Amino acid sequence: MDFTIDRFSSEIETVLQALDYPATAPGLYEPVKYTLASGGKRLRPVLTIAACAALAHTDGTEAIHQALAVELFHNFTLLHDDVMDNADVRRGRPTVHHRWGVNAAILSGDAMVSMAIEQLATDAGAELADLLKCFNTTAMEVYQGQQLDMEFEERKYVSVDEYLHMIGLKTSVLLGCACRLGAIRAKADEHTAQAMYDYGFALGMAFQLRDDWLDTFGDPAVFGKEIGGDIVNGKKTWLLIKAREVDEMRIQALYADSCMPQELIEKVSEIYRRHGLDEGCRRLAEDYAARAKAIIATVDIDKRACDFFCSLADHACTRQH
Amino acid sequence: MDFTIDRFSSEIETVLQALDYPATAPGLYEPVKYTLASGGKRLRPVLTIAACAALAHTDGTEAIHQALAVELFHNFTLLHDDVMDNADVRRGRPTVHHRWGVNAAILSGDAMVSMAIEQLATDAGAELADLLKCFNTTAMEVYQGQQLDMEFEERKYVSVDEYLHMIGLKTSVLLGCACRLGAIRAKADEHTAQAMYDYGFALGMAFQLRDDWLDTFGDPAVFGKEIGGDIVNGKKTWLLIKAREVDEMRIQALYADSCMPQELIEKVSEIYRRHGLDEGCRRLAEDYAARAKAIIATVDIDKRACDFFCSLADHACTRQH
Repeated sequence: MDFTIDRFSSEIETVLQALDYPATAPGLYEPVKYTLASGGKRLRPVLTIAACAALAHTDGTEAIHQALAVELFHNFTLLHDDVMDNADVRRGRPTVHHRWGVNAAILSGDAMVSMAIEQLATDAGAELADLLKCFNTTAMEVYQGQQLDMEFEERKYVSVDEYLHMIGLKTSVLLGCACRLGAIRAKADEHTAQAMYDYGFALGMAFQLRDDWLDTFGDPAVFGKEIGGDIVNGKKTWLLIKAREVDEMRIQALYADSCMPQELIEKVSEIYRRHGLDEGCRRLAEDYAARAKAIIATVDIDKRACDFFCSLADHACTRQH
Repeated sequence: MDFTIDRFSSEIETVLQALDYPATAPGLYEPVKYTLASGGKRLRPVLTIAACAALAHTDGTEAIHQALAVELFHNFTLLHDDVMDNADVRRGRPTVHHRWGVNAAILSGDAMVSMAIEQLATDAGAELADLLKCFNTTAMEVYQGQQLDMEFEERKYVSVDEYLHMIGLKTSVLLGCACRLGAIRAKADEHTAQAMYDYGFALGMAFQLRDDWLDTFGDPAVFGKEIGGDIVNGKKTWLLIKAREVDEMRIQALYADSCMPQELIEKVSEIYRRHGLDEGCRRLAEDYAARAKAIIATVDIDKRACDFFCSLADHACTRQH
């Protein structure tokens, strides 16, 4: 059985496309279908199936419903977050609230949570309580992360620790949960399930910190999004928080000046470079990826499974888009 | 053990007030506490405990967590519905989105669903799968009902059957679910659990139709809300749909005239009266209450429990507020 991201993600695409929608109030599900059809890397459900495959020595498809649950939940958070951030574009297409209005985005998002829980419970058998506890605890943490993210926008100072805590909640716990759900489906013991969770969590941190790095230092020809959005929005990422720690005066002065976006991006990223923060951010992502690989090395799985999880970690902190 | 609404609802108030909130991101839970403290009848959780008490011959508190789940979910729907309806006031106080903004209302509402599921699963044991299936199916139906409600606003015609289907989904299924969760906790057989659900569903229909009647024909001194809001908003309730069936021309002419709200209320309710629709709506609520009582009479419970459920049904279709 192939242990490749392509095989896992094509399994997921197949079942996503075959997903059954209730016949009542079809208008409720149009935004759901639209959101699910807009692609994305399917990283989270891939983790669920891969974790199950690695631990159960199967093709992993016995965890397909739990994988769908994670993907549905992830897409629901994007839908509601886009409303909260008033974002117009997601993955190159108009956001749901932009196309159908805020009400549709709220309500269809709510419906996606129910769809996720339905998938989570499908064929769950004796593992239902464990699956639900992991899923629901994670959901609450994701909301806490989003709440902190919104509160940080209003605050003057945010510390590096606070920032790492926030992205841990908003992003990384769901990757941890994705891995743990697969482990539960594989009937792994608690120690192994926790190790898989920890791997996913560290992987999530690497992804997010690389995301922050790419937003400023990515190659415009490859990145696919505008470079410098975080700087222009004054988003308190690891880079900006660190820069303010070393040169608060200069950063304040730059944001007080009403210079053009392109000039602001150039000047702020110049400060980042001068203090080695581009290197620092890149390395922090690498550290988390190394941690993920060290954790997966402790789990009793085949070499090709271990290689798969390690290559994901390498990708997380070296990817260009 | 007392079989009174006061005992059941005071049990619920006690545990609601003692509810634990996570320490992370406390701002997420302020709107939740505010919403839960704003009172309301606690009808749904009362049904859960009463159903459990009646069927298990206990005080019903073994269903307290499932009762909380229903109350949390109900309050979440109010929170998101208020955003969608752009309502400024709920139970005499500013709505959450009015006080904290739309983003807080969306996110805290999402968190309430997780809190509800946490409660649902507490002490659930072997019944978890049944409880979750009932709860989650109901949640999806409530969203379908809200979707239809919003779609009906945009439509020119809505039939009586469509309207009854919509309020069944938006309102009644949750009362049915509340009863069924209590029955499941009492380890009732499927036939009994379904009868309790059907009782709750019929009770919900009686409540909603009485609500529609009160909005136009309630006593302003007792009702507590402005009379005639549905008429002013052109809300397609049973009354307006029926009136259009018998005198579409006159209704259309009244809504085309730009008369003052008070005049519109008087003229439309005069049409309702002329065609006996005040009586018709009142009677339809009574029919559903009678159906609820007939169903509960088939369930093997004590006389005082049966009396309790029957008095709730009588109250649903005779209440003045």
